[in-house]
Amino acid sequence: MFTKQDLSSLPSRFRAQLINSLTGYKGLVLCGTQDDAGVHNLSLISSVVHLGSNPPLYGMVMRPDTVRRDTLDNIRTTKCYTFNHVSETMYVKAHQASAKYDPHESEFEAVGLTPQLTDDFGAPAVAESVIQLGLKLVREIPIEENGTVFIIGELQWVNVPEAFIAEDGFVSIADAGTVTVAGLDGYHVGKKLSRLTYAKKDVEVEHQFDFLKPPAKR
Amino acid sequence: MFTKQDLSSLPSRFRAQLINSLTGYKGLVLCGTQDDAGVHNLSLISSVVHLGSNPPLYGMVMRPDTVRRDTLDNIRTTKCYTFNHVSETMYVKAHQASAKYDPHESEFEAVGLTPQLTDDFGAPAVAESVIQLGLKLVREIPIEENGTVFIIGELQWVNVPEAFIAEDGFVSIADAGTVTVAGLDGYHVGKKLSRLTYAKKDVEVEHQFDFLKPPAKR
Repeated sequence: MFTKQDLSSLPSRFRAQLINSLTGYKGLVLCGTQDDAGVHNLSLISSVVHLGSNPPLYGMVMRPDTVRRDTLDNIRTTKCYTFNHVSETMYVKAHQASAKYDPHESEFEAVGLTPQLTDDFGAPAVAESVIQLGLKLVREIPIEENGTVFIIGELQWVNVPEAFIAEDGFVSIADAGTVTVAGLDGYHVGKKLSRLTYAKKDVEVEHQFDFLKPPAKR
Repeated sequence: MFTKQDLSSLPSRFRAQLINSLTGYKGLVLCGTQDDAGVHNLSLISSVVHLGSNPPLYGMVMRPDTVRRDTLDNIRTTKCYTFNHVSETMYVKAHQASAKYDPHESEFEAVGLTPQLTDDFGAPAVAESVIQLGLKLVREIPIEENGTVFIIGELQWVNVPEAFIAEDGFVSIADAGTVTVAGLDGYHVGKKLSRLTYAKKDVEVEHQFDFLKPPAKR
């Protein structure tokens, strides 16, 4: 067991890797933005959380003291950003986008990904991403405990190929090839176990192994 | 493409599945708590997010209008809770813990998992879990946009077998058998791609395929 005292006396990089690994697999997206002058920015985010479906809201955590400040500045300016799923063919480029580039350099160009613009939307998506989301800033909440910022955004549009959408709305991201990260640098794809029926007291759950079909109705 | 209008006109269950699926793979934990009378409670949470490593802080989103209210009440009372990783051998039981049980019923008993108590810590862990975390409530933030609550907690202790910890602090959760969920009901395990070296401008990243070893130093 690591006690609180053990944790606080760990070397800081070791502690960062450890603490980061303990939440399990993390949703991984490339966040696309642009500044006033139209310079595109791309950052790799692994702190997205689902807040609710009606309205469709997502949260993400940003550290203003890192390279991601460009992203935060752009979101504050344009109120727009995109989330783009990362697939096996591009996760190395996505990881490279987390390097520190100069403020007026586009990470798209630097890592070899293609900005894709949508009419009337002020942030570029990643053309190579199978699943793309467009969001509008709703509110930011300062986390005073450590100087991070929790950004709430509302979904404005989503591109997801119909072939990956089950008839109940579930998107099979394993079939879409979506990559996940554990800790700071451990990339994985998902291997399907099963979809399970809605849990009810005293009723045994049933398995659905075809992820493009809903679990049996009860 | 689903436009904002398309999204708002979807049937609510379809929309919930869709919106929930779009964040990618989610960290999945069983959250253990107990009430004043010592009755244990267990709920399945897929909204944990890493906030920072020094101090070690995690956030999670709770919906006060669902079964998880017991968990929230208990956290408010005792200020303590545990996160317990879910493995392939127990994910069906973990899913079953999301059913609506009576307030004074223990989900541990109902689904067949074992509460594990630690001296001087006011919440039970799950004995079957390979990785267990103990947290103390720091603060709750109301998300007025949809009535959810964002709970910030500080890590107090962690149990993780040494065999899964790399020398740089990375925990190989694929080796630990940790399960992840996509959408509301799609369970997966992770299949390793690679760990990547810290990204630097104009330097090619290198792969490390043995997750228990750090990527090469630069």
